Amino acid sequence: MNYDAFFEQSLNDLKSEGNYRVFADLERHRGEFPKATNRGDAEKEVTIWCSNDYLGMGQHPTVLNAMHDAIDRVGAGAGGTRNISGTTHHHVLLERELADLHGKESALLFTSGYVSNWAALGTLAAKIPNCLVISDSLNHASMIEGIRHSKAERKIWKHNDLADLERLLAEQPLDRPKLIAFESVYSMDGDIAPIREICDLADKYNAMTYLDEVHAVGMYGPRGGGIAEREGLMDRLTVIEGTLGKAFGVMGGYIAASRDLVDFVRSFASGFIFTTALPPAVAAGACAAIKHLKTSSVERESQQAKVAKVRDRLEQIGIPHIDNPSHIIPVMVGDPVKCKFLSDVLMRDHGIYIQPINYPTVPKGTERLRITPSPVHSDADIDALLSALEDLWAQCQLQRMPMAAQ
Amino acid sequence: MNYDAFFEQSLNDLKSEGNYRVFADLERHRGEFPKATNRGDAEKEVTIWCSNDYLGMGQHPTVLNAMHDAIDRVGAGAGGTRNISGTTHHHVLLERELADLHGKESALLFTSGYVSNWAALGTLAAKIPNCLVISDSLNHASMIEGIRHSKAERKIWKHNDLADLERLLAEQPLDRPKLIAFESVYSMDGDIAPIREICDLADKYNAMTYLDEVHAVGMYGPRGGGIAEREGLMDRLTVIEGTLGKAFGVMGGYIAASRDLVDFVRSFASGFIFTTALPPAVAAGACAAIKHLKTSSVERESQQAKVAKVRDRLEQIGIPHIDNPSHIIPVMVGDPVKCKFLSDVLMRDHGIYIQPINYPTVPKGTERLRITPSPVHSDADIDALLSALEDLWAQCQLQRMPMAAQ
Ligand SMILES: Cc1ncc(COP(=O)(O)O)c(C=O)c1O
Ligand SMILES: Cc1ncc(COP(=O)(O)O)c(C=O)c1O
Repeated sequence: MNYDAFFEQSLNDLKSEGNYRVFADLERHRGEFPKATNRGDAEKEVTIWCSNDYLGMGQHPTVLNAMHDAIDRVGAGAGGTRNISGTTHHHVLLERELADLHGKESALLFTSGYVSNWAALGTLAAKIPNCLVISDSLNHASMIEGIRHSKAERKIWKHNDLADLERLLAEQPLDRPKLIAFESVYSMDGDIAPIREICDLADKYNAMTYLDEVHAVGMYGPRGGGIAEREGLMDRLTVIEGTLGKAFGVMGGYIAASRDLVDFVRSFASGFIFTTALPPAVAAGACAAIKHLKTSSVERESQQAKVAKVRDRLEQIGIPHIDNPSHIIPVMVGDPVKCKFLSDVLMRDHGIYIQPINYPTVPKGTERLRITPSPVHSDADIDALLSALEDLWAQCQLQRMPMAAQ
Repeated sequence: MNYDAFFEQSLNDLKSEGNYRVFADLERHRGEFPKATNRGDAEKEVTIWCSNDYLGMGQHPTVLNAMHDAIDRVGAGAGGTRNISGTTHHHVLLERELADLHGKESALLFTSGYVSNWAALGTLAAKIPNCLVISDSLNHASMIEGIRHSKAERKIWKHNDLADLERLLAEQPLDRPKLIAFESVYSMDGDIAPIREICDLADKYNAMTYLDEVHAVGMYGPRGGGIAEREGLMDRLTVIEGTLGKAFGVMGGYIAASRDLVDFVRSFASGFIFTTALPPAVAAGACAAIKHLKTSSVERESQQAKVAKVRDRLEQIGIPHIDNPSHIIPVMVGDPVKCKFLSDVLMRDHGIYIQPINYPTVPKGTERLRITPSPVHSDADIDALLSALEDLWAQCQLQRMPMAAQ
């Protein structure tokens, strides 16, 4: 085989489909986010409209000070795996903070949300004898890979469809171990799972529940515990999983659950055991963000107000977007080439950065511009965004939605 | 099934085998590493002898300044996946630095060395049609999981055994795609692979090579490019993989290879695509460490001198350890309970922290104390370590090695 030719051909195929990805090379300016410099071919000042630093905590002074302070006190990296000299006091404190956030006995840190899903689901489903995993059809890649890794039997239930979930549960013996895996806010469509009803079914059929709150922690609930906190359901979930890299503004992932379940994953998960621990400064920054958002609601309220404003304006000018009860606004384009073109023009002519979302992140044919308003977007930013979109839609004769629809 | 009872029972089994892990809760003091405070039950000052911050770069002023500076300029987290607003200029610069370090066209960052192995091997072996992976029997968990994830056919060759490797290669059609996966320095035994001879076989049988240099980058070769640099072999390897979390003192992982291979992994690897990028400050710190170690050899030389010294002293008093040509000194105990006991006494009576290494990190029956001398260990630290070990070996009547052996 000619390896080089194979790689080249695969890349050419991606390019001709319109699915080849070019990363924007950004330099944010602390304190001025969502402004950044695009360091691509021609340097350009841009406004970022597609970040998952949902609340701007990535530049919050409390977070930055905690990171500076940790670097000054303990240095750069952890210097080892959690077991071999890599557990620092910052990790211990952060795990306590996370357990408290979700009202659980215990929490466990991973290097990312991806790894937490992969390692925790992979370990639970592999080690619990004869475990059946029942997985929502739109679950994130990290959950799917974890389930696949476990080699446990898996059944997919139709996205957010309770009847389908119950059908799958009911056909199993009551005493067979079962794990229902799902998300609260689905990141690409922004819809929200019926958590209470899923927990009711789990109780009825003696199943465990595993909830990914990656796109909700920090943003929902009086202390930022996520959708399950907002609905008063945290104690009904077996495992709550989250990230430190989105609303908390830094990096890392975690699970929160009972003491023994967490200790079990800690003891057996390859993806937890065999890797260098998070730098203490990352743990300290995340810890500061969580603490802050436990008592401060201004960021959440302001985010919701900005989201409502952008959504209203899109409605007014009839730009097609998915209506949903979350902070995520997907503007639908439905074609990878067109989607990239729109994104390129927004960047070039308007200094607006919204990455085109294409396959494999979303199914082919549902390509979109995913807009994430945050407390740090000003009214002027919103005006600029909407007038740019209006221009583009007119100029390119793109489809509008009927004013009354959705 | 009673889930709680299952978790509890599994943990009790681990405890009764002696394989239950208790993490030391450490607080390092910047500028004073290897000294740290153990924040466990009774607070205690300790000297760390088991860190993978091999060169003390985790407290090097150049690294810490680069991190502070990045936080001041751009904030805490990357705010997105690499594709969706998470590529910052610090990532771009670091990837260039890594490509240069290994003399390759291109490099790609991952959130950890674990993820780089898992994602890169998983993607290459899955996507190259009919690929056979030939994997060294002592490869790291992250490589094994990546290969397993790919679902490609896999054959295991006896650790560092060229005849066995050739036997497996020879029985395959010459034009079948093959990938030989191995490490340079094996982290638990400290032995080194015959890289040149493996490359010769790869050429003869038209195989790709994938070399994990996680325990070598920064420490070997005139610019810290690893064992392959030291031996002048970097251009003969298809993929070189490394970590930013050990000798480079921070966190993260990477591969370096041809432009198209890297672009291929970038385009298809789930573990690269679907996760938040490293914080810019982490990238900046790692970049500074790499740059520094490209021109400074004092850290490498001093490390090697300390290693030689500890090794000599162990020889003198006959404490059994694996003889090897690397910086890793495994003192063999061979029993998990005894190993933990020794570690506990070292901590309690001597303020010396060496984590017991037990299953699953090493095979049962080969439990050990893994000692990693570094440039920041003083002669007094070495004296204290050796006299503590000598005491313990006498007190517990542990086996000595015959003075002439090994
Ligand atoms: C639903 C979901 N779970 C998990 C992750 C992974 O989290 P992290 O970015 O911390 O790896 C993501 C996105 O990145 C996600 O969208
Ligand atoms: C050989 C080897 N490869 C990869 C890794 C993973 O690297 P990281 O700690 O950066 O995840 C390790 C250890 O942690 C290792 O020993």
